[in-house]
Amino acid sequence: MSVAPVRFQARKSIEQVEEGNELAPRFDERGLITAVTTDADTGELLMQGYMNAEALQLTISTGEAHYYSRSRQVLWHKGATSGLVQTVRELLVDDDQDCIWLRVDVAGGASCHVGYRSCFYRKVPIGGDFASKQADGHVDLEWTDTEKVFDPADVYGDAPNPTVL
Amino acid sequence: MSVAPVRFQARKSIEQVEEGNELAPRFDERGLITAVTTDADTGELLMQGYMNAEALQLTISTGEAHYYSRSRQVLWHKGATSGLVQTVRELLVDDDQDCIWLRVDVAGGASCHVGYRSCFYRKVPIGGDFASKQADGHVDLEWTDTEKVFDPADVYGDAPNPTVL
Repeated sequence: MSVAPVRFQARKSIEQVEEGNELAPRFDERGLITAVTTDADTGELLMQGYMNAEALQLTISTGEAHYYSRSRQVLWHKGATSGLVQTVRELLVDDDQDCIWLRVDVAGGASCHVGYRSCFYRKVPIGGDFASKQADGHVDLEWTDTEKVFDPADVYGDAPNPTVL
Repeated sequence: MSVAPVRFQARKSIEQVEEGNELAPRFDERGLITAVTTDADTGELLMQGYMNAEALQLTISTGEAHYYSRSRQVLWHKGATSGLVQTVRELLVDDDQDCIWLRVDVAGGASCHVGYRSCFYRKVPIGGDFASKQADGHVDLEWTDTEKVFDPADVYGDAPNPTVL
């Protein structure tokens, strides 16, 4: 069976975008929309990335997360290199349709190129905790996860690190 | 007791940023960093916004979420107008330190200017579900929440809607 490619509606009014049932995503001046990806079971934030129109279309039609890599400037089928495919259980859109929320199951249990389960493995002390721990306004990050799920060298080999300074 | 204002470290190396314990956030060319806000109890994604350096510093020092409003171009103490203050339970930073994750408790139980608990109250059918429901590539959004927690007119009066078409 042939399925028509995913199509979006033009953005016509605030009423339509916020309270309507038309999918009318807003891509920014770079042609990108923000994507937030959480573990469908635990609610843990796994990663935050970007999609161009093609990545969003493919994510909807295939049910597997696709992003746009800003550092490599290519469409990015998550897991194509690492095997850590994200199967999307739910895809939601926010009120003004400039952000996509993916609730996913992750093959292999990891989403982070550094090797941790989530990209968010360090926390910042806040409020009174910040006040008691800071020295001259600086505080140390505190690890919330110290166990890598995989060794990046095994998975990515000598591919360039995507982190931009 | 006087507490020093929050200070950030300069970004010196990938090793420092990804595997170190220094807080060295990356603000983009607009001076902003992405913030993702989830309900600390349920893991539900409540909103995605942006912070400038001052917003991040105030969030860390006060333990209440501050953002930068791109539409109004001002520092935005969430809840200052609506009363729906977000008390931050944990603040995490991602691998390359260009995204902040806030796990919050929300006074009043709502985060969305449209009146819903979360900004994400509509989902898009995906995969086989998309294929079976689409017509000429278009699908209807499906409501995941239909009950508004508050009436925006009561809370915001005639303040301009922040949604940009």
